[in-house]
Amino acid sequence: MAFADPDITSDFVLPSNVTGSPVDGNFFTFTSTRALVSAQPPPNFKVTKASMAEFPALNGQSVSLAVLQFPAGTTNPPHTHPRSAELLFLLDGSLEVGFVDTTNKLFSQTLKAGDMFVFPKGLVHFQYNADAQKPALAVSAFGSANAGTVSLPVTLFTTSIDDMILAKAFKTDVATIQALKAGLAPKP
Amino acid sequence: MAFADPDITSDFVLPSNVTGSPVDGNFFTFTSTRALVSAQPPPNFKVTKASMAEFPALNGQSVSLAVLQFPAGTTNPPHTHPRSAELLFLLDGSLEVGFVDTTNKLFSQTLKAGDMFVFPKGLVHFQYNADAQKPALAVSAFGSANAGTVSLPVTLFTTSIDDMILAKAFKTDVATIQALKAGLAPKP
Amino acid sequence: MAFADPDITSDFVLPSNVTGSPVDGNFFTFTSTRALVSAQPPPNFKVTKASMAEFPALNGQSVSLAVLQFPAGTTNPPHTHPRSAELLFLLDGSLEVGFVDTTNKLFSQTLKAGDMFVFPKGLVHFQYNADAQKPALAVSAFGSANAGTVSLPVTLFTTSIDDMILAKAFKTDVATIQALKAGLAPKP
Amino acid sequence: MAFADPDITSDFVLPSNVTGSPVDGNFFTFTSTRALVSAQPPPNFKVTKASMAEFPALNGQSVSLAVLQFPAGTTNPPHTHPRSAELLFLLDGSLEVGFVDTTNKLFSQTLKAGDMFVFPKGLVHFQYNADAQKPALAVSAFGSANAGTVSLPVTLFTTSIDDMILAKAFKTDVATIQALKAGLAPKP
Amino acid sequence: MAFADPDITSDFVLPSNVTGSPVDGNFFTFTSTRALVSAQPPPNFKVTKASMAEFPALNGQSVSLAVLQFPAGTTNPPHTHPRSAELLFLLDGSLEVGFVDTTNKLFSQTLKAGDMFVFPKGLVHFQYNADAQKPALAVSAFGSANAGTVSLPVTLFTTSIDDMILAKAFKTDVATIQALKAGLAPKP
Amino acid sequence: MAFADPDITSDFVLPSNVTGSPVDGNFFTFTSTRALVSAQPPPNFKVTKASMAEFPALNGQSVSLAVLQFPAGTTNPPHTHPRSAELLFLLDGSLEVGFVDTTNKLFSQTLKAGDMFVFPKGLVHFQYNADAQKPALAVSAFGSANAGTVSLPVTLFTTSIDDMILAKAFKTDVATIQALKAGLAPKP
Repeated sequence: MAFADPDITSDFVLPSNVTGSPVDGNFFTFTSTRALVSAQPPPNFKVTKASMAEFPALNGQSVSLAVLQFPAGTTNPPHTHPRSAELLFLLDGSLEVGFVDTTNKLFSQTLKAGDMFVFPKGLVHFQYNADAQKPALAVSAFGSANAGTVSLPVTLFTTSIDDMILAKAFKTDVATIQALKAGLAPKP
Repeated sequence: MAFADPDITSDFVLPSNVTGSPVDGNFFTFTSTRALVSAQPPPNFKVTKASMAEFPALNGQSVSLAVLQFPAGTTNPPHTHPRSAELLFLLDGSLEVGFVDTTNKLFSQTLKAGDMFVFPKGLVHFQYNADAQKPALAVSAFGSANAGTVSLPVTLFTTSIDDMILAKAFKTDVATIQALKAGLAPKP
Repeated sequence: MAFADPDITSDFVLPSNVTGSPVDGNFFTFTSTRALVSAQPPPNFKVTKASMAEFPALNGQSVSLAVLQFPAGTTNPPHTHPRSAELLFLLDGSLEVGFVDTTNKLFSQTLKAGDMFVFPKGLVHFQYNADAQKPALAVSAFGSANAGTVSLPVTLFTTSIDDMILAKAFKTDVATIQALKAGLAPKP
Repeated sequence: MAFADPDITSDFVLPSNVTGSPVDGNFFTFTSTRALVSAQPPPNFKVTKASMAEFPALNGQSVSLAVLQFPAGTTNPPHTHPRSAELLFLLDGSLEVGFVDTTNKLFSQTLKAGDMFVFPKGLVHFQYNADAQKPALAVSAFGSANAGTVSLPVTLFTTSIDDMILAKAFKTDVATIQALKAGLAPKP
Repeated sequence: MAFADPDITSDFVLPSNVTGSPVDGNFFTFTSTRALVSAQPPPNFKVTKASMAEFPALNGQSVSLAVLQFPAGTTNPPHTHPRSAELLFLLDGSLEVGFVDTTNKLFSQTLKAGDMFVFPKGLVHFQYNADAQKPALAVSAFGSANAGTVSLPVTLFTTSIDDMILAKAFKTDVATIQALKAGLAPKP
Repeated sequence: MAFADPDITSDFVLPSNVTGSPVDGNFFTFTSTRALVSAQPPPNFKVTKASMAEFPALNGQSVSLAVLQFPAGTTNPPHTHPRSAELLFLLDGSLEVGFVDTTNKLFSQTLKAGDMFVFPKGLVHFQYNADAQKPALAVSAFGSANAGTVSLPVTLFTTSIDDMILAKAFKTDVATIQALKAGLAPKP
């Protein structure tokens, strides 16, 4: 399924399969993040999205959110969002963040709780909780109901792109590519 | 000054008055919200915006955030955002929220901490912390770098719109309009 | 139903339920306003819309019109259009018009027949025929096939928003809110 | 100079050369059409535009209007608007109107006073007042602050396009092209 | 059928009638132009489009291409694209090209193999291979999945627009219009 | 500098520093690709862009082109375009191409001369000339005047992102990261 993100010509968009009782306030409410606020930190980095797929009322509203939980010492690997910038608000802990622009310049920062940082549209960026003890918690806003995520380690090294193409692209040998692929492969 | 919100043809937009050293990560960082995270609740409802005016790096990125602090028993009066939907994430406390669509139907909800609620583009909406004791804290995302706010009590009754026009519009008398204006007028 | 307003990738959009004979010039013609041109003024202010709902050929064309009839001494109450600016052309009579921007500044004007006035996107505005004898007639253009209308008296005071929330928002007492609600309630 | 038409991130856009006193209601008012309402018909077809060039407050508001005056028996020649559909409202008289879609199908109609007709975005269209006695008056709305007009007789035959290219394109001879050019050339 | 051209909220858009096996790389491949690369020149000017109708994977991607083959001495008649600019890349031969802006100014050029030329959005333009011997080959890019084409000779003179309207518009007589129509009419 | 890509409200956009003689057809012509058509293949993969930076007339026209030259056995490494899809037309030779969607599925294809392939907006993609003898030549169209390019090997491993962050992200050790960085570093 695919929907257009830009200005809609109705107040909101109902899913085509809505039947029975008319929509009420519940349709515009998302409760899957309720547990996150006072939750114990997860064992690994975890992102909980509230985008069009999980929260259909966002269709046509050009906005979405995600909650990011960083246990101590964990990273959100380099990635891009094909359809939006990201504005991150650090609620708790600290974070190393950065992005690279199309001239290959790195912009980085150390964020303290309460800080915001904007990752411009479509650029490669990452976050890292360098603290060895404390978890970090952030919420990120997007200007699209479905920003999408392209995680680069997974995209590059777990999707069957030919070893030799990758070796040439990264100016290394096939053995290194195969070792990277083995490290990133899902564990049985 | 005015800028177009849609897709830009550069990675980001620098203010025209940038001089001296080139931009670095600080340009993309917003620290004015740092104090809010652990702050004492303010005496009245307070909104702290991170939009294009306060955070110029948002120009062209089509996203912004606001932090909303609700002391016990306070309200964010009915208002609209002319240029975006609002996706609210309740971090702490509880909130009564609602919006009215263009068919004059009210959609309302009681939110618990961790819940999200979307107010569709351009519609009248409000939030109210009904708890007599506990403050509430929320963060709201917008799909525009400058969503704008039209606060209806202030817009209608503190801007010199003719008393008789308002009396006719609200099907009341001039005395009632003047009393509403007096109540909303800034205190000397 | 909801449709995207922006550029379409076809010449025009046919309703999904068109059957039988193919469309011809009639599909692109709207005759419901034919009677208005030489009609007697109605007893109250009246707006006749030619938007996507009434005139399906406008779907995808990002334009619509409305005809506004103001008997002597009547008002079009403060309202917003969530999805477009309004460009009003006064065909006959005179009008007091105004809008309030997001800094709470009122811009007002007295229009004579043949004048135009633009109400910017999403802002609160109103029109009033102050003439005690003569009716006024206007046509308004919108840059959306479905600009939508949020009439503020009706939205605020006839949609079951809690009395106490409104009293706090308008810095008045519940009795005043209830009186306003009673005055605006539909007559039995 | 060129400006983007889509959603702006301010309430309105001020011209860069505004100096002196701040803008007031006059900036949003256009009075050049005041005389048209009760004017004598002009000798030839005449269009009076209220677009961004004549009415700078329209910048960023994505809407404009034009007033069309058709003396008896006159035509608005085939033309396109590169940046908008046109929604015509016939105020007085009658009109033959038509457009051709990209499959080369003609859609035509005879309009009576009070009728509207929509010419879809970018398509070739025309209007003709077939009445031998009565003038016609129309107002047209556009979903762009500067829809632009490409008048085809003038564009094709008064702009020095090579005679032979035109002869080949219209499958005629150079003499016919030269005769058409002579007929359309401005009279000294 | 009609689809919105702007940013989609999915990676790509599948046709609604896809059934059976899931899409693979073939869905994103277009082979109808394979024969053109080494083909003998056609007898007349010929355009081969790769737009949304011929290549459904372009839906939502806001880009398309066309291959233009000009035998010696042939022309692509004056036309417009209602939904995009055109960026032409001349691969072989030479071309006379031109467009007319909305102020009726002609911009023309003689292109050599390897040159590019941009025809701005919605304006009338043409190409002509003036070489008496050599064919020309070009590829044109569009920023829409369905730019559309309005060919002016055909639109104006083969679609039953009334002879008298055309005669008035082109300031000529009905006999000339009828001769032009006869020349452009499809041969039996 | 930054410009908005969407629909402009003028025919074209002139650079702010144009002085002297008015623009003519030369402004809309790009000749830097003239030499490419019959050039000897370059020693390495080479892309020649005709985007807004090199060809200012594209500003506001939402389209651009690039010419891609692949000597035998060379690759265009995995990359994304933040602001557009890419529609590639293979003029000569053969190419292995592929992209990965946001569900981490690889779509790949072997292209022959004359084939087209579309890489959807914002997704990671690559091209490889697997032929050991023959060069390949392609032209790619974009639906933005400045699509931008994020080359992933260079972005990830030559921009000073911390070794440990990269090691954690790619689930490898710092030594491997340092070896990749050394291999991709510019040669002195």
